[in-house]
Amino acid sequence: MTMTDWKDDLKAQEQAHVDELLELLRKPSVSTDPTRKDVVSETAAWVKARLEKAGVPVVKIADSALHPSVVGRWEVDPAQPTVLFYGHFDVQPAEPLELWETPPFEPTIRDGRIYARGSSDMKGSLLTVIQGVEAVAKANGGQPPINVAFIFEGEEEIGSPNFRQIILDNLDIVKADTVVSADGSQFGPDTPSLNVAWKGLAGLQVNLKGANSDLHSGGYGSTVPNAVQALVQLAATFHDADGRVQVEGFYDSVIDLTEDDKAEIAQTAFDEEQFKQDLGLTALWGEKGWTPQQRIYGRPTLDLNGIWGGFQGEGVKTVTPNEAHLKITCRLVKDQHPGEIVELIRTHVEKHAPAGTTVEVVPAAGSADPYVVDRDNEVYRAAGKVLAELHGTEPVLVRSGGTIPATAIFKDVLHADTVSYGWAQPGSGAHAPNEWYRTEDYLRGRVAVGRLLEELAR
Amino acid sequence: MTMTDWKDDLKAQEQAHVDELLELLRKPSVSTDPTRKDVVSETAAWVKARLEKAGVPVVKIADSALHPSVVGRWEVDPAQPTVLFYGHFDVQPAEPLELWETPPFEPTIRDGRIYARGSSDMKGSLLTVIQGVEAVAKANGGQPPINVAFIFEGEEEIGSPNFRQIILDNLDIVKADTVVSADGSQFGPDTPSLNVAWKGLAGLQVNLKGANSDLHSGGYGSTVPNAVQALVQLAATFHDADGRVQVEGFYDSVIDLTEDDKAEIAQTAFDEEQFKQDLGLTALWGEKGWTPQQRIYGRPTLDLNGIWGGFQGEGVKTVTPNEAHLKITCRLVKDQHPGEIVELIRTHVEKHAPAGTTVEVVPAAGSADPYVVDRDNEVYRAAGKVLAELHGTEPVLVRSGGTIPATAIFKDVLHADTVSYGWAQPGSGAHAPNEWYRTEDYLRGRVAVGRLLEELAR
Repeated sequence: MTMTDWKDDLKAQEQAHVDELLELLRKPSVSTDPTRKDVVSETAAWVKARLEKAGVPVVKIADSALHPSVVGRWEVDPAQPTVLFYGHFDVQPAEPLELWETPPFEPTIRDGRIYARGSSDMKGSLLTVIQGVEAVAKANGGQPPINVAFIFEGEEEIGSPNFRQIILDNLDIVKADTVVSADGSQFGPDTPSLNVAWKGLAGLQVNLKGANSDLHSGGYGSTVPNAVQALVQLAATFHDADGRVQVEGFYDSVIDLTEDDKAEIAQTAFDEEQFKQDLGLTALWGEKGWTPQQRIYGRPTLDLNGIWGGFQGEGVKTVTPNEAHLKITCRLVKDQHPGEIVELIRTHVEKHAPAGTTVEVVPAAGSADPYVVDRDNEVYRAAGKVLAELHGTEPVLVRSGGTIPATAIFKDVLHADTVSYGWAQPGSGAHAPNEWYRTEDYLRGRVAVGRLLEELAR
Repeated sequence: MTMTDWKDDLKAQEQAHVDELLELLRKPSVSTDPTRKDVVSETAAWVKARLEKAGVPVVKIADSALHPSVVGRWEVDPAQPTVLFYGHFDVQPAEPLELWETPPFEPTIRDGRIYARGSSDMKGSLLTVIQGVEAVAKANGGQPPINVAFIFEGEEEIGSPNFRQIILDNLDIVKADTVVSADGSQFGPDTPSLNVAWKGLAGLQVNLKGANSDLHSGGYGSTVPNAVQALVQLAATFHDADGRVQVEGFYDSVIDLTEDDKAEIAQTAFDEEQFKQDLGLTALWGEKGWTPQQRIYGRPTLDLNGIWGGFQGEGVKTVTPNEAHLKITCRLVKDQHPGEIVELIRTHVEKHAPAGTTVEVVPAAGSADPYVVDRDNEVYRAAGKVLAELHGTEPVLVRSGGTIPATAIFKDVLHADTVSYGWAQPGSGAHAPNEWYRTEDYLRGRVAVGRLLEELAR
């Protein structure tokens, strides 16, 4: 079998590979559900066995404080670089079940789509990695043309709490020069894309206190600070009427979008009217002076994620609350750093705390620096070339408004950049009912993985 | 036995009456606790039996949708006016139990105080009514010198949800020209007081919605309205920096305090430094231009009682919330009316709802008009005279920052004014651990009730 034969091999195995995906999708590996801990472990074992079947010589269940990861290594020349494929085999809960047209863990193919929880996020793309590597290795005399490593985790949907530790515990297996994350999506049905930036994340909680206990509003409401009112006043100072963050210094280290950036972002423009209609909104909101796309992909934000204080039950309780709480996260862009941003917010909160109240700012775990792909990167270039070749059109360069902590962990622990290389479509219902994954994306994804290995081997 | 003998009779019965109160205090008649429904009923039966023992000819358990009231009537001359005594025999929960020095339902006398849940609020003052009427009736040939009615409820501590209906169902028994509420307190250990005003109450909930579902802050936080942020912006418009309510028209019908009012309120001044220290506060808050006492007793308020929306758990959830909620109550003064105030707030909320959000204002049940005592009232004058006589000092005229819906119900249904005539002391721990009631107030209270009847009979 020659190096070109592997595509024919993949073609011949299409039905078998679809069946394999259906088998994996039948496992309800919901990582947040304690009653399914065994299912997550069984799924890890299934992935381990699948890697072994593909010929990967070193495969291991990497236990953690909760759910295991599966790590593997196929080293062909210690002197050569290694590419690490990343993915996860856990899934979101399927609830609300009544909204599914077919049961979430009974995968069903309709109109070229495979409907099941975990299909697009991301058991499909995970399998394309294993099947692509397997096919190329088989055609290459039983081993891949370059060093390949794997890490598939079982805790992505619960925030990867043990991921850093798993990497540290298994450095000899997962060490790599570049990471290819299969947990990614494409721009549209016929348009490939390459992610070039993710935002960073800083999180904190504000705890505001007034008097030493809740008080009766009749005796005290007119005369002592009300924690809910004080927090509302404080929280209203974070943005001005133009949606611009008012925390002093917040934008100081932001690198402004260049004309090139703006041109690149303009390629991802969407239909604003349709967007509003889909969300049931009569108006959008956001920092004045920027398009929605520029805001999503290129501007930092300060988001109020939650607020609570005082009475939240049915009816009336005439209380003057003495405590109120606010959750904040910020999406950061280059060169903002979460630690600095939290300190700027702390200063702002202390400055704007209403008289008679005390405030506490508690930074949250799980912060991440913004991440911008190094485009002068062999894997990145190879990925772009393969996508253009397979789709017949150049990939759109997209930024993400989101954050992938794993990316920052790979950079931090392995000193490796991450290229996103996955096949989910927009609107494919990741985290929602009736999640789907296109069969054609699945089948082509295997080829894309194989071609990437070929390109990297040059 | 002559009309003057009844005081000697009460003197002779001091120990027996204290024992009687201890017996009543041993009943854990916690109206909010479903497991104690039977106890509340047993307590009603005890109160009924006590009224019958006092000689009241018509006594009845008045059932309601939840807990019963006890109603009674002692009519001596249908042509003469009737005074209705009001009280309640249910109590607040005793929790947190560990803060009680002696068990809440094992009354203990220490230093002239009876410690037990319900002692000051208000089983003690309730018994002074029955014992006082009993003593005078006995000395008066077996019946009181005027028509007397009674209504003692079992749902006061849960907001008297069935009270209006109970009155309507038992009009022939409770109909009266004036009400004397024993659910009251005195100004201080040696200073009697008469309540001259209660605030009204208007309550509502604001429900704010943004998009049709919670959204991921990475993809949407910079671009769609965030319900928590929008509600915070809206809620911050209710007051200006001087604590003045900014709802248009809110103060329009407020009757300003006169110089006489201010002089009267000034008698109730308290030590502001001590007040702050007791509450653990470094600063007070409130509408500029008024003293704390003027605000508490004479100025309307708009109080934020509770707020909630988005993520309130541990850690971080990068959600752009699509719903947030706010609880508001207003304390009203003459001539504000709850229905009008709710409409003014509705207009304000609709005007200030941030673009792209929808708001809903839901008025709460349990509103009450402000209530100002008619001082040109025989019972009021008689009460003042008796208090001055028994304490050797004129009663302080006090207003309440609070609201007693029963008062408004009496006015509305019976067209009767209410005079507050009870013996709790400030700081006696109503609704708190280690509630107490002074034995001397209890014993004198019986005499005060008897003397009031004598005065009214003139």
